[in-house]
Amino acid sequence: MAPRYEVMGIEGLPEIRGGADLGQLILEAAAHQGTPLRESDCLVVSQKILSKAEGRVVRLAEVVPSPAALAMARELDRDPRLVELILRESKRVVRMDKGVLIVETRHGWICANGGVDQSNVDLDTASLLPEDPDRSAQTLRDRIRQLTGLDLAIVVSDTFGRPWREGLANVAIGVAGLQPIKSYLGERDPAGHVLQATLLAVADELASAAELVMGKLSRVPVAIVRGLALERAEASSKSLLRDPSRDLFR
Amino acid sequence: MAPRYEVMGIEGLPEIRGGADLGQLILEAAAHQGTPLRESDCLVVSQKILSKAEGRVVRLAEVVPSPAALAMARELDRDPRLVELILRESKRVVRMDKGVLIVETRHGWICANGGVDQSNVDLDTASLLPEDPDRSAQTLRDRIRQLTGLDLAIVVSDTFGRPWREGLANVAIGVAGLQPIKSYLGERDPAGHVLQATLLAVADELASAAELVMGKLSRVPVAIVRGLALERAEASSKSLLRDPSRDLFR
Repeated sequence: MAPRYEVMGIEGLPEIRGGADLGQLILEAAAHQGTPLRESDCLVVSQKILSKAEGRVVRLAEVVPSPAALAMARELDRDPRLVELILRESKRVVRMDKGVLIVETRHGWICANGGVDQSNVDLDTASLLPEDPDRSAQTLRDRIRQLTGLDLAIVVSDTFGRPWREGLANVAIGVAGLQPIKSYLGERDPAGHVLQATLLAVADELASAAELVMGKLSRVPVAIVRGLALERAEASSKSLLRDPSRDLFR
Repeated sequence: MAPRYEVMGIEGLPEIRGGADLGQLILEAAAHQGTPLRESDCLVVSQKILSKAEGRVVRLAEVVPSPAALAMARELDRDPRLVELILRESKRVVRMDKGVLIVETRHGWICANGGVDQSNVDLDTASLLPEDPDRSAQTLRDRIRQLTGLDLAIVVSDTFGRPWREGLANVAIGVAGLQPIKSYLGERDPAGHVLQATLLAVADELASAAELVMGKLSRVPVAIVRGLALERAEASSKSLLRDPSRDLFR
């Protein structure tokens, strides 16, 4: 039978505050809309609601910019308190130009603003990425297993820009219970060629597939991906980080 | 109701040769497996079968490498005939190192090997990208409309690497009947923030969503994406090309 799968947004979640029991809330919302979770579902969860549940939201009034942040903010024409937060979240500035600040986050992700974001949070606050998105995913997976016995694959998604291509796309910044990369290493096509495209970023593709129902306005922060034969594993999103020695674009 | 959609691979297509009537073959294969096409479906089609149908397959024995190709091939330890084809397909070499040749194709896409690929074609041949993937998409759209009256959105997909992130992902290199970028320009989130993430590369996300059923072994070269409220338009994939003046990574 031809492979097929379904993507279902979950809406109706309440506004998420620090300490929220996300597992419970997601289960309830999914059941309430008539799409209860099932064994082998993959759950794609926006970084933002995990950050909120984990209290990773900062009041800008409480941020004191360093001299370095003040200088960069002047050059970029940006709020120095935001630049301060971005620098705290970063281990390296990759590019800084035209108002854009691209950094390598402490996790190793390369993205604009280090994941510091002001959308879908209260005014005068900014959200940070989860401290350890793999751990966030694992905690959610454990909680859902505890409540239901279901063992789901979890992808934590965020919206990143890309060099060369216009427009943003969702990618994975955390996983649990899922091998984020599918390897075709050593496989051959029908003509006998060894495949050139050997490593597929399945977790990123799941995040992108989910974005198509999640959108940007926070009403659908979670999606169920159902029906794919995903490779389950105790794995980390770190395998999506390109080894710097193999990256021609550092 | 929460948004949801379905992705269905189409299998059972015959080996595609130059001049094949792809529209007819896709319709038949979709009907044969019990998933006939419907109005408003989006069809994601691998670049490879369009290239084959358009005769964009070259016998390596007939390729005479230029001196430049010979020199680069030596440096990269690659087949000089392939390097010759890559250079013919390119307008600029972006990076060349560690056996990898990243170019800007004549269309403007930045990718490894200029889309010249040896997988899923006969031995001793290589496939090139369609000359104009938007035109390929439009031709397929027209043909299906002619045969059935259905007006589909079409995405031509290919598998590209990305800087910074490990693993490849499918992206769109051609579209028809679809606005490839979704704009949130000027929209505000519930808290009143103007959204920072304003342009979403929907066509790339569709290509990625489809890859999850298409895989790399050529058995599922087409997928139906059904149920999304996509923005239909007479548009070009060119809006996915980042304006060089806004790209910090040229």
